[in-house]
Amino acid sequence: MIMDRLYKAAAESPVCVGLDTKIDYLPACIANMDTNDGEKIFEFNKKIIDATADLAGCYKVQVACYEALGLEGMSAYARTVQYARAQGKLVIGDCKRGDIASTAEQYARGHFEGDFEVDFLTVNAYMGYDAVSPYLPYVKDHDKGLFILTHTSNPSAKDLQEQKLEDGEQVFEKMADLVEKWGGDLVGESGYSAVGAVVGLTYPEAFADIQARCPHTFFLVPGYGAQGGTGKDIADIFKRSRCAVINSSRGIICAHRGKTEGPDFVDYIRDAAAAMKEDILQWL
Amino acid sequence: MIMDRLYKAAAESPVCVGLDTKIDYLPACIANMDTNDGEKIFEFNKKIIDATADLAGCYKVQVACYEALGLEGMSAYARTVQYARAQGKLVIGDCKRGDIASTAEQYARGHFEGDFEVDFLTVNAYMGYDAVSPYLPYVKDHDKGLFILTHTSNPSAKDLQEQKLEDGEQVFEKMADLVEKWGGDLVGESGYSAVGAVVGLTYPEAFADIQARCPHTFFLVPGYGAQGGTGKDIADIFKRSRCAVINSSRGIICAHRGKTEGPDFVDYIRDAAAAMKEDILQWL
Repeated sequence: MIMDRLYKAAAESPVCVGLDTKIDYLPACIANMDTNDGEKIFEFNKKIIDATADLAGCYKVQVACYEALGLEGMSAYARTVQYARAQGKLVIGDCKRGDIASTAEQYARGHFEGDFEVDFLTVNAYMGYDAVSPYLPYVKDHDKGLFILTHTSNPSAKDLQEQKLEDGEQVFEKMADLVEKWGGDLVGESGYSAVGAVVGLTYPEAFADIQARCPHTFFLVPGYGAQGGTGKDIADIFKRSRCAVINSSRGIICAHRGKTEGPDFVDYIRDAAAAMKEDILQWL
Repeated sequence: MIMDRLYKAAAESPVCVGLDTKIDYLPACIANMDTNDGEKIFEFNKKIIDATADLAGCYKVQVACYEALGLEGMSAYARTVQYARAQGKLVIGDCKRGDIASTAEQYARGHFEGDFEVDFLTVNAYMGYDAVSPYLPYVKDHDKGLFILTHTSNPSAKDLQEQKLEDGEQVFEKMADLVEKWGGDLVGESGYSAVGAVVGLTYPEAFADIQARCPHTFFLVPGYGAQGGTGKDIADIFKRSRCAVINSSRGIICAHRGKTEGPDFVDYIRDAAAAMKEDILQWL
């Protein structure tokens, strides 16, 4: 089961390398290549994957950065997820898709088969269970997994997610309960279900609350590094359970910026991934 | 201002033709073409646009159906939105994107410039204002518009959107208030702001409630036809204000199914669009 595989990979390294690649992240040695921006971005990603494959528990590819470049960007997205998976790595498509019924079936097909096939997809369930159920046949029959947006790491998470319901709970707590419920009959050997949750690192108390509510839910955790989360914050989570992969994007894939424009950029990126792994594992 | 243009187009025809095109919708005359599925889907869409351009207030293109076909699907998406806009029609990219800050900026760039450029984008604001604000520079400087998911037409809208908050309001009412607020300084001559809302037709009372809360909000309304909404439901809305375009997808683009496999499929589709327009306008 795919979440068991991610659980095992995360036990080795909870580092999720976020390939939120933008054109201005590229060192000159790639930026100056005589090809289009999509090709350049794929080259950059490929070198990052090669340099970090033994350090990363998984990769998360942020589709927005590729959609921004239109068709050539989507080609870079496809090649990136295909390349990482071909190296035997687990890949999360960070697409936050959110639609229902036959439309969500189309997203499931698009992201769990064909050019854009990934192992896990992030999903926005503002529309409720109808925005989740169409993925479940793929989860069951094609060994795929989901991460549902639950409590995000941004300041305006308060606008909706932190609104208090009449029973005293907050909206994100309701979402957390739903995620735990939706994955209820999809729990693997690791004890975690194939339906995970995205929960930001920047609100430690909310994380602890969600962790307590969701004993079978594995977490994709943004917010480390550039967004302010630290190894210590993660240690608090892992003391309770080893239930998460921790994403860093800019903190890793921009580590070379201001230091080199040459092919040694991968050394800085590798060092940053290694340092993050160490920063987390030192507490365990 | 773009919402003024949509308001005027909707006064002529409130019909939004939904190009949620799937491969099994194609008549044999297109399905049997010697080309890939993406090309076939674009051919089908192009013929629909040609046949309905004078009947449709606008088009909504459901990106999920194109993502499902991978890169060739995304090429069909790009060509479809480009073709409809080249005919002078307003196009809504039904992408329901939902991410924050620099990531949402990438979505804004991807859908308001370049290959996938549309006039309006649907957005999921579960993450709050941070999921909306990055689009606003495009709204202001490039004359674009948004439709924020507010109350959707599916049964499990109750899971989150209909949860009651401690002040007695429901989550979707909170979202409606936010949408009205976020568009506050973007109101055009028509009296409607560039930040609209997606509100389903299938809950008439909720619609009336939202309409009362959001006097400056223009609505994209799914749920007509295949999903159960009728001209009478729309009449009730329009009696209060002419504040909406009404989407129908399968009800129009599948009108030929079971009737013809030949090039006359466009006649059935045109008739369905005309019938929908009449069904709505008869009440006014």
